[in-house]
Amino acid sequence: MHHKMKKMLLEQQARIVASLEALDPSTKFFIDKWDRPDGRGGGISAVIEDGAVIERGAANISFISGVIPKAGILKMRENHASMNGPDVPEKLPFRVAGLSLIMHPVNPFAPTVHLNYRYFETQNEDGTPLAWWFGGGSDLTPYYLVKEDAVAFHQILKNVCDKHDANYYPEFKSWCDRYFFNHHRGEARGIGGIFFDDLTGPDPEPIFEFCKDALTSFVDIYVPILKNRITTPYSDEQKVWQEIRRGRYVEFNLVHDRGTAFGLHTPGARIESILVSLPLRAQWRYDYHPQSGTPEEELVNTLHTTKDWATEHQTMYNVLVE
Amino acid sequence: MHHKMKKMLLEQQARIVASLEALDPSTKFFIDKWDRPDGRGGGISAVIEDGAVIERGAANISFISGVIPKAGILKMRENHASMNGPDVPEKLPFRVAGLSLIMHPVNPFAPTVHLNYRYFETQNEDGTPLAWWFGGGSDLTPYYLVKEDAVAFHQILKNVCDKHDANYYPEFKSWCDRYFFNHHRGEARGIGGIFFDDLTGPDPEPIFEFCKDALTSFVDIYVPILKNRITTPYSDEQKVWQEIRRGRYVEFNLVHDRGTAFGLHTPGARIESILVSLPLRAQWRYDYHPQSGTPEEELVNTLHTTKDWATEHQTMYNVLVE
Repeated sequence: MHHKMKKMLLEQQARIVASLEALDPSTKFFIDKWDRPDGRGGGISAVIEDGAVIERGAANISFISGVIPKAGILKMRENHASMNGPDVPEKLPFRVAGLSLIMHPVNPFAPTVHLNYRYFETQNEDGTPLAWWFGGGSDLTPYYLVKEDAVAFHQILKNVCDKHDANYYPEFKSWCDRYFFNHHRGEARGIGGIFFDDLTGPDPEPIFEFCKDALTSFVDIYVPILKNRITTPYSDEQKVWQEIRRGRYVEFNLVHDRGTAFGLHTPGARIESILVSLPLRAQWRYDYHPQSGTPEEELVNTLHTTKDWATEHQTMYNVLVE
Repeated sequence: MHHKMKKMLLEQQARIVASLEALDPSTKFFIDKWDRPDGRGGGISAVIEDGAVIERGAANISFISGVIPKAGILKMRENHASMNGPDVPEKLPFRVAGLSLIMHPVNPFAPTVHLNYRYFETQNEDGTPLAWWFGGGSDLTPYYLVKEDAVAFHQILKNVCDKHDANYYPEFKSWCDRYFFNHHRGEARGIGGIFFDDLTGPDPEPIFEFCKDALTSFVDIYVPILKNRITTPYSDEQKVWQEIRRGRYVEFNLVHDRGTAFGLHTPGARIESILVSLPLRAQWRYDYHPQSGTPEEELVNTLHTTKDWATEHQTMYNVLVE
């Protein structure tokens, strides 16, 4: 399964890079292949900066192997039931294959997107998988609320989820709303999507197929949204608003995101691969509130409520895709 | 002592605001007086944004009172020996008076400065002080290393420290170097200064006098540095470099700073007062390294070493002030 996942992630990375480069022939992704100094894996970072469409973004793959010490095993058991057992081994070999993506567009009317899919397994002494799980998801962070984009994003994710398990979308949508929340601001990072971790079972195949479908759908979801918004004219004030909201994105990633915190506190971690999630530019203004009745205020109001985008607005979406 | 500290902080805040406004008659600080909704204190924030000299900054005072629950008492005993005792009370009333300052100048050749002085006390049932301590310090974050500014900053702090206790400067300078360190980057936030916490003893008076002198020296240290640098011409590229380095400042404050973390995770905390420490603008660039032999590289090299600014370069400073 590790190799199968690796192959799938490599294919999807190439497809994503190609589809985004097609939108902006003037800018190529910078492909940065790296190996860990200790030989325990490596990755391929595909990074874009100062593009005509994407201001800063990355689609990064990594394949890491190593050994979890006893304390780490106990810590991981808190969140991963499949690691439980009568005894606690002194150490456990593991490997993980993952793709992590973030795109911050130039145009304030185009939303930032984040996506992550990963397969984790611990191994027996002979190298066969012992415990394993998948994790992942995708979420959207608009600077101006374009309702049909929010609906389309959720609707396509719901369709992919429903194809595999009717419980997936409601469960993973709610998990996403809870996770991507700027607690200190009392507001959501964006309009959500899906988020899951520790997805395991008797057979990895159907879960792999779900992850593959969900990851494959990214190009179908995000590229049309981007294409529709990148020609919208915008003012300097709207760009400032985008950068202020990007400040909130920085706050979430540095203060609340568990993956970022784990990476930043891991000795020898590849800091540039982790912090490539941050935008090119961010701003902070003292006690800034958008004026009443503006589209900026509409966005803020949206981030203070949880919306059932896919079902409430299904009619609107159906009209759109006809 | 609480009232004495409060009076001193108010006087110093007014003096600092006046001395910085004198450098830039076109911009006034915004004075934001606030009270906690629960009536347990309040503060005065003095905020500046988009000034001709200061891009963003604040000199904020707060006076907070409340009750520490048993769990909080146990937690605080880890770092504050004066709170120890044979029994653990169910709760303890406390109050704190503090001034927290940060100034991010426009000109990339002028350094960012940070300063904080506070007095904390727990109280007996009759309101008299039980355990108490002072904390504080001040540190400088240049974007281009101007050696005489670094030396002058440390030299004046050392003079203030030495007047009160010969151990203060070496101890607090080293504490500052350890504290303001971006561990995930393996580099210092800036060129340091002094930092101390839990400063207590048989008598609060001499410690108060030290804090007062240290705080008073701020205007003598920073205003001349600022005055000498604000007219230095700079290019767009140098401004970009400043914003990239300000990204590192954001990283420290959101990832490592204990005061910020405490504030962001305290329900009902005044988020705007806490995050006013962040710069107006910050940038992130993938795997950015300054070119060899440039002033930008010189700064980075400096942040990878600990320097004994005040003593090593004493001659240079003496020449400067003559």
